[in-house]
Amino acid sequence: MKLAGCNTMTLGIFSWVTLEPREGEFNFSWLDRIMDDLARSGIFVILATPTAGKPAWLAQKYPEVLRVTADRRKRLHGLRHNHCYTAPAYRKCVGIINRKLAERYRSHPALLMWHISNEYGGECHCRLCQEAFRTWLRRKYDNNLDNLNRAWWTAFWSHTYTEWEQIESPSPIGESLLHGLTIDWKRFVTDQTIDFLRTELAPLREITPDVPVTTNFMGTYPGLNYWKFVEQLDVISWDSYPCWHSNGDTTGCGHPSDGEGRDWKVAADTAFSHGIMRSLKGGKPFMLMESTPSVSNWHPVHKLKRPGMHRLSSLLAVAHGSDTVQYFQWRKSRGSSEKLHGAVVDHTGSEHTRIFREVARVGSDLRKLDDLVGTTVPAETAIIYDWENRWAIDDAMGPVYKRNKKYEQTCKNHHYPLWTLGIPTDVISMDCDFSSYRLIVAPMLYMIREGVAERLGSFVEQGGVLVCTYWSGIVDQNDLCFLGGFPGPLRKLLGIWAEEIDALYPQERNGLIMEANNDLGITGEYELRDFCEILHAESAHVLARYKGDFYKGEPALTANNYGGGKAYYLAARVEERFLKDFYASLVDGLSLRRALAADLPEGVTAQLRSDGHRSYIFLLNFTQSPQVVDLGGRKYVEMLSGSKLGGRIDLEPFDVKVLS
Amino acid sequence: MKLAGCNTMTLGIFSWVTLEPREGEFNFSWLDRIMDDLARSGIFVILATPTAGKPAWLAQKYPEVLRVTADRRKRLHGLRHNHCYTAPAYRKCVGIINRKLAERYRSHPALLMWHISNEYGGECHCRLCQEAFRTWLRRKYDNNLDNLNRAWWTAFWSHTYTEWEQIESPSPIGESLLHGLTIDWKRFVTDQTIDFLRTELAPLREITPDVPVTTNFMGTYPGLNYWKFVEQLDVISWDSYPCWHSNGDTTGCGHPSDGEGRDWKVAADTAFSHGIMRSLKGGKPFMLMESTPSVSNWHPVHKLKRPGMHRLSSLLAVAHGSDTVQYFQWRKSRGSSEKLHGAVVDHTGSEHTRIFREVARVGSDLRKLDDLVGTTVPAETAIIYDWENRWAIDDAMGPVYKRNKKYEQTCKNHHYPLWTLGIPTDVISMDCDFSSYRLIVAPMLYMIREGVAERLGSFVEQGGVLVCTYWSGIVDQNDLCFLGGFPGPLRKLLGIWAEEIDALYPQERNGLIMEANNDLGITGEYELRDFCEILHAESAHVLARYKGDFYKGEPALTANNYGGGKAYYLAARVEERFLKDFYASLVDGLSLRRALAADLPEGVTAQLRSDGHRSYIFLLNFTQSPQVVDLGGRKYVEMLSGSKLGGRIDLEPFDVKVLS
Amino acid sequence: MKLAGCNTMTLGIFSWVTLEPREGEFNFSWLDRIMDDLARSGIFVILATPTAGKPAWLAQKYPEVLRVTADRRKRLHGLRHNHCYTAPAYRKCVGIINRKLAERYRSHPALLMWHISNEYGGECHCRLCQEAFRTWLRRKYDNNLDNLNRAWWTAFWSHTYTEWEQIESPSPIGESLLHGLTIDWKRFVTDQTIDFLRTELAPLREITPDVPVTTNFMGTYPGLNYWKFVEQLDVISWDSYPCWHSNGDTTGCGHPSDGEGRDWKVAADTAFSHGIMRSLKGGKPFMLMESTPSVSNWHPVHKLKRPGMHRLSSLLAVAHGSDTVQYFQWRKSRGSSEKLHGAVVDHTGSEHTRIFREVARVGSDLRKLDDLVGTTVPAETAIIYDWENRWAIDDAMGPVYKRNKKYEQTCKNHHYPLWTLGIPTDVISMDCDFSSYRLIVAPMLYMIREGVAERLGSFVEQGGVLVCTYWSGIVDQNDLCFLGGFPGPLRKLLGIWAEEIDALYPQERNGLIMEANNDLGITGEYELRDFCEILHAESAHVLARYKGDFYKGEPALTANNYGGGKAYYLAARVEERFLKDFYASLVDGLSLRRALAADLPEGVTAQLRSDGHRSYIFLLNFTQSPQVVDLGGRKYVEMLSGSKLGGRIDLEPFDVKVLS
Repeated sequence: MKLAGCNTMTLGIFSWVTLEPREGEFNFSWLDRIMDDLARSGIFVILATPTAGKPAWLAQKYPEVLRVTADRRKRLHGLRHNHCYTAPAYRKCVGIINRKLAERYRSHPALLMWHISNEYGGECHCRLCQEAFRTWLRRKYDNNLDNLNRAWWTAFWSHTYTEWEQIESPSPIGESLLHGLTIDWKRFVTDQTIDFLRTELAPLREITPDVPVTTNFMGTYPGLNYWKFVEQLDVISWDSYPCWHSNGDTTGCGHPSDGEGRDWKVAADTAFSHGIMRSLKGGKPFMLMESTPSVSNWHPVHKLKRPGMHRLSSLLAVAHGSDTVQYFQWRKSRGSSEKLHGAVVDHTGSEHTRIFREVARVGSDLRKLDDLVGTTVPAETAIIYDWENRWAIDDAMGPVYKRNKKYEQTCKNHHYPLWTLGIPTDVISMDCDFSSYRLIVAPMLYMIREGVAERLGSFVEQGGVLVCTYWSGIVDQNDLCFLGGFPGPLRKLLGIWAEEIDALYPQERNGLIMEANNDLGITGEYELRDFCEILHAESAHVLARYKGDFYKGEPALTANNYGGGKAYYLAARVEERFLKDFYASLVDGLSLRRALAADLPEGVTAQLRSDGHRSYIFLLNFTQSPQVVDLGGRKYVEMLSGSKLGGRIDLEPFDVKVLS
Repeated sequence: MKLAGCNTMTLGIFSWVTLEPREGEFNFSWLDRIMDDLARSGIFVILATPTAGKPAWLAQKYPEVLRVTADRRKRLHGLRHNHCYTAPAYRKCVGIINRKLAERYRSHPALLMWHISNEYGGECHCRLCQEAFRTWLRRKYDNNLDNLNRAWWTAFWSHTYTEWEQIESPSPIGESLLHGLTIDWKRFVTDQTIDFLRTELAPLREITPDVPVTTNFMGTYPGLNYWKFVEQLDVISWDSYPCWHSNGDTTGCGHPSDGEGRDWKVAADTAFSHGIMRSLKGGKPFMLMESTPSVSNWHPVHKLKRPGMHRLSSLLAVAHGSDTVQYFQWRKSRGSSEKLHGAVVDHTGSEHTRIFREVARVGSDLRKLDDLVGTTVPAETAIIYDWENRWAIDDAMGPVYKRNKKYEQTCKNHHYPLWTLGIPTDVISMDCDFSSYRLIVAPMLYMIREGVAERLGSFVEQGGVLVCTYWSGIVDQNDLCFLGGFPGPLRKLLGIWAEEIDALYPQERNGLIMEANNDLGITGEYELRDFCEILHAESAHVLARYKGDFYKGEPALTANNYGGGKAYYLAARVEERFLKDFYASLVDGLSLRRALAADLPEGVTAQLRSDGHRSYIFLLNFTQSPQVVDLGGRKYVEMLSGSKLGGRIDLEPFDVKVLS
Repeated sequence: MKLAGCNTMTLGIFSWVTLEPREGEFNFSWLDRIMDDLARSGIFVILATPTAGKPAWLAQKYPEVLRVTADRRKRLHGLRHNHCYTAPAYRKCVGIINRKLAERYRSHPALLMWHISNEYGGECHCRLCQEAFRTWLRRKYDNNLDNLNRAWWTAFWSHTYTEWEQIESPSPIGESLLHGLTIDWKRFVTDQTIDFLRTELAPLREITPDVPVTTNFMGTYPGLNYWKFVEQLDVISWDSYPCWHSNGDTTGCGHPSDGEGRDWKVAADTAFSHGIMRSLKGGKPFMLMESTPSVSNWHPVHKLKRPGMHRLSSLLAVAHGSDTVQYFQWRKSRGSSEKLHGAVVDHTGSEHTRIFREVARVGSDLRKLDDLVGTTVPAETAIIYDWENRWAIDDAMGPVYKRNKKYEQTCKNHHYPLWTLGIPTDVISMDCDFSSYRLIVAPMLYMIREGVAERLGSFVEQGGVLVCTYWSGIVDQNDLCFLGGFPGPLRKLLGIWAEEIDALYPQERNGLIMEANNDLGITGEYELRDFCEILHAESAHVLARYKGDFYKGEPALTANNYGGGKAYYLAARVEERFLKDFYASLVDGLSLRRALAADLPEGVTAQLRSDGHRSYIFLLNFTQSPQVVDLGGRKYVEMLSGSKLGGRIDLEPFDVKVLS
């Protein structure tokens, strides 16, 4: 570990049966020994509660802890993350083992932090969860079924509930199309997981009130609304496994759009998730809890990380606000499903491997970046990526089939040009405070929860710039359509009425033609696909129009002056080239601060961390070729090498420089 | 509704829980008010029995009403159309609510007709249905298991039943390959659904003997043999949702063949279903019970209906025998799965939308076509499309996998050239009376039920022309192969023996070369794919031969003179160009009456309705371009505009004219 | 049968309910009659135990005999091969019917052999099987759970078992990723099937000790390790259904690689399975128990066997060591799922069909090959294709997804050039005796069981040549990774250390460049795909290097001199052209005996049978064109025609000649 420059280890994930081989029989000696050894070596421990994998004896004795699937089949013991979060027996056993851990290691010099469970996820449909769901619903709907029936629009298809007991969670063998039910179920799953997390935390908070806690998230994992977890946690951390070097081979990693998969696209998409993690705690640095030094083992194809890529991807996380770089796994397991997953120490068992050397180099680099700890990314721009909006969009039938609507990818597509320009950008939910931003981008804001339209209005009124797109303002928080014309409560702010939305077949294209002398200073035509909304400009003025089809000449891009600010509406899905030109124009118009005011070659990005006084510029080359960047007249210290830099500098393939 | 020109509304589908919020507690006040309002406005009501969606209380109180899936899992309450047709509890409750409805509205001035349930479909495998199936089998097989064992060929794989209780419906976790069982199960499902329909009808027939009834069909829905329903219904109606504007994009709507998806192909395929609906009652006009004014919500991609297409597709239905054009839905639901399905009134809530204007135009057009009500389509030609034949073909293992045999598409491929020529064509089952036709086309007549071969023989003997294809006369009504040489009982009539059938890979092609100086007057070569049967011409003469492969030179198309008529046999699947030339030659030879004796541009068709004396010619342009048609010397009144027409006339894109 | 030249019939498969229509009530009269008739006609009978399809009464009376699926659902009665091999009730009933059969026909003159059940396969997860599995595990692990936990590496994910009762077979709703469990379960399934086979055999061995027994295998069927069955059987037989004439159309038969599907590739792959069947009994001739004279009925597309192909494919089996050619089915069933499966006698019911004539020709040919009966294929070469290795590879997560690793196809790719060269080649497991070979090819020897590395070492030491590839020596028999550097126990023998393995996307390519003046005499470049391992040559010398990527110049092919022999290591998946050049060089260097020392056109192969003294050379033309082969100066008797041949001879399309 010292050779690798690693100073912190996460311990004890999935160790329950080793800690408690039989109910009530505990064995900490092995863990004592490791903790002591690490402490002696000056290495800190993030100690995990072992609850993500339950012992077989527990499932055998308390069958209620086994999950029931959506199609109502009780699972057998096996795999991991497969316990019911509601089951009292599980909560009881979790309480005991967590208390034991806290009591034993409360004063251990190695103990740095608690790692709660592992990658919370999934859901259970057992009778206990059905009861808990109904209780949750009674609370939400003031114990009044009429409220629920109205919110869920149950009169449709004769679904009105007349007793609470008639309500069942969504199921492929039962109800799956009642959108009010499905979205409330997802909200319940998040809340119930948090309720379980509270059970996990109780003994830790009681016994070790000063030890911070985290749990490891999974980026944009769709099953849980991470924003709801924030107040329970002291630090945000996540597990990042980008699929490098896929070069757009969609047979590999499922990148859905053309041209995706080039390493700088993967980097931008990864940065999008880093942005969420940083934004969850309002800009506070997060931790990269898991990453692989080489390959993962669950992608269709596992290319080795090319020389330099490990360092580059590690420092990408730091550039976006991570204060740590950690690994799964330290040493490769000999057996079972993850035996071929990348690790710092391979089965060969020595430090004389390429992978180990790559890891050691990162360790050595990080040692030089101590000044960055605690600094943040000074964002004037935010993208709204909202879990509930995603759920509602995925549920919606029309204008194209379910996930084909690509909400997440669309948010990433709007994020990409900002990232290439080096614009510090937060990724927030629609409930966040907008007041610190100057530019807010809200792609496909299909759901508008109560108060959000008003808050967006205030933001623009006070001088902010808002960018909205097609398919916004369609439903409220109950997934009920707004009446009186889309985009519903945004209609006045955006100054448009969206009458219809046309869906295009995957191979079909239309065009967007910029109006002459438009405010953006953009000219020419751009290609459209997937969605074309047919607008009526009301108070908005038209910046671009459709090139073809029966709505040729109708508005395709509008802007509405509103108070001191401006609200843009993009009516169709448009090619990347447009988004680059469009955001470059906005950035220019708003004089938004860039990490580096330089033209960067494609695949090279600059990112910024700052403590408010001093700035740290990360220059990252995601291409396999040498690149040249012109730093201009200013002089910088390159922190990793200690050298002074200025003017035209060279970047090696997959190179990274940190300028101070 | 008056603005839209709508004079009839269907009410009450899925309204059960609103009508009966608790068992035995009824609330008709809301429906009274709507019925009264409509009556006052001169709008008629087609009143639905609400049984397609059951209340949650019903499922809760009588679990037996919940369907059991083929893999023997009891469904939970949810969705719609998910009740057991056998369950006594369901039949009891249906009887009560239907009686209440009939009693309350028997004399209401708005009541025009009963709409029974909604889109009957699906099947149930519960114990009650197993019992009912066994009872059905005992009746069919004279309570004699030996009869059943013989018919089902159960000795194969040791499947002989020795007690009736051993018989279970087909299941993916049980028996699925015993063809006798699977086809009898499908017959039972049809019969049991009709039995349930009779339960629904009983109180209505008793209380309102003079109010006609219909139920809405779904075109070629494979699960039910609609021909069996005919005697229960007074009027045929169906729900038509073609996928316009897909332009052959098979990622969208699953059109299986090359070049499918152009709007005139979609129109011809839709006309095929209209043809079934009209033929079900021997040519009596049917009703277009549901259609969407804009988009549906269950296709992969929902393109807006282009301007004019709604009118064009509505009048296509009328051209083929519909006396109505109705919509699902009048006003868009605010919530749940169909909230984005097209409607006359959108969420915006006014008549000032493009869609509303398109609907209003259809309303105005229909007002000018009152003379057509009750007229029919004078067909001298029929295509046999037979549900049981389809089931047997889909079950058959070989010569290609299951549905890849494309029975339905093949029938539509033979229908298409007749449709483009404007030949009025019925679409019938093999049990229909053949005597009124001069040309019968029977593609892939794999199953020949008892008596059918004899009746086809008589038809030809009396001067009729019959067209058969490869893979005919293979099995009898029990799905047992005919012995003694295919096409079994058609061998003498067709004058051939089909020794073997070769299947081609999707990309493989062969050719068919016309014999010199053949009777059809067709020359040259055509492309073959999928299936090539190897024939021996016995009494038939050879019109074309194979171009390649080891059966090069063998007969590929034969004709057999038989009595006063002729029976053609097409041994291979051949390209559309051939079918066009072939049917043009037959039409010519038989001097079959065309709607309009003119050369029509591709994508334009003419269709005919007539009361026996006066004719109405529909000219329909399914292209997006203007087209010219030469009406010749004759003069017509164009009914929609009232103008007089003759000679060369112009059709706008998606235009329709009705000539009298 | 006499017209067809058939002298042996297999009877009674799936006839249980006909033999025993009710429990304890037997009816042999129909079988007596057939047996007597056949005996009188001089036709022998291979009599089947009827246990592959159970009667409905048996399932009804003893529900324990119904299989439970991996997701723990009890199946209903239906299909075939769906009984629990453990159930005492089934074993009891099987014992009775088999005893009855043996007693009745023990002395019947027609009885030649026993055919046990039919195509054993599948698995059952019922409680009885769970118990049997636990008993099997207790025995294997000395009744010590610690041993099992260590072998299965259960500490991973907290899976340590603390009671035997906690162990359940793998399940999609339970444990599926514990590799030790999954591979032991597959071993158990093989052993339990054999245990059931022993139950079947007991009465037969007791009553008819002199009648040989066989059961029909299914080539490389993945579910059972056929090597374990060998000691129970007197003769090996199998059912061969190659997919001829697919011409690389992968929509048809699932041939995974480019250019697969040409008939000579299909022939080589079929020969690979023949090679397994012959090797199972150490070179003893096997029986082709089932083949179709025309089409099967379960492929996606069923092309007719072209004229001559039936004879060619039949004699291919003989060329590779079959002493019989038999058919499924004699006469086509009239009903149910196999009614369209090819047969000698078609539904037409006469001998006047093309298919019958093809069968009769094979019968007539075989009569001329009596001298070959009992001869073998004198193999100096063997390919290791090992079932347990396959299971472990398919389970492994990484470097690409599961089956995409293509173990079986890779073995066939190495077999193909040897087959085209006419090198007699055995296909063996890693437990076979290596001492009779001079060349052993062991592609992807991922698992190395105890002792195997040592035995391969001895083989090379004593002068043998060994060819290994990427991804060898990764895990031991418990599926635990070797520590200390891959290829684990082969490291010294191969003289290399494989540090990392890179996976390529399906469209990616790299190259292999031969070193100048290498020992193999091969020059130039070859294309690589899928896998590239990064090697360190230790004692080995480098024959070729990588052309590109970050491991450009690293070793891609090495050779290690070891004792009197040599061990090659091919680090990457390479195109067929290389394998041809490589094996041609090895064959040359070792002077391995070829069937015919002639240059053969592509698609033509020569194969050898021999009794040690006299040789029989099969010349097989798998192309649809005439071909010329130069036999050189030597003269041969062509056994099928009786003519004498030498020099340049002509082969008709799909022709076969047998030279003596």
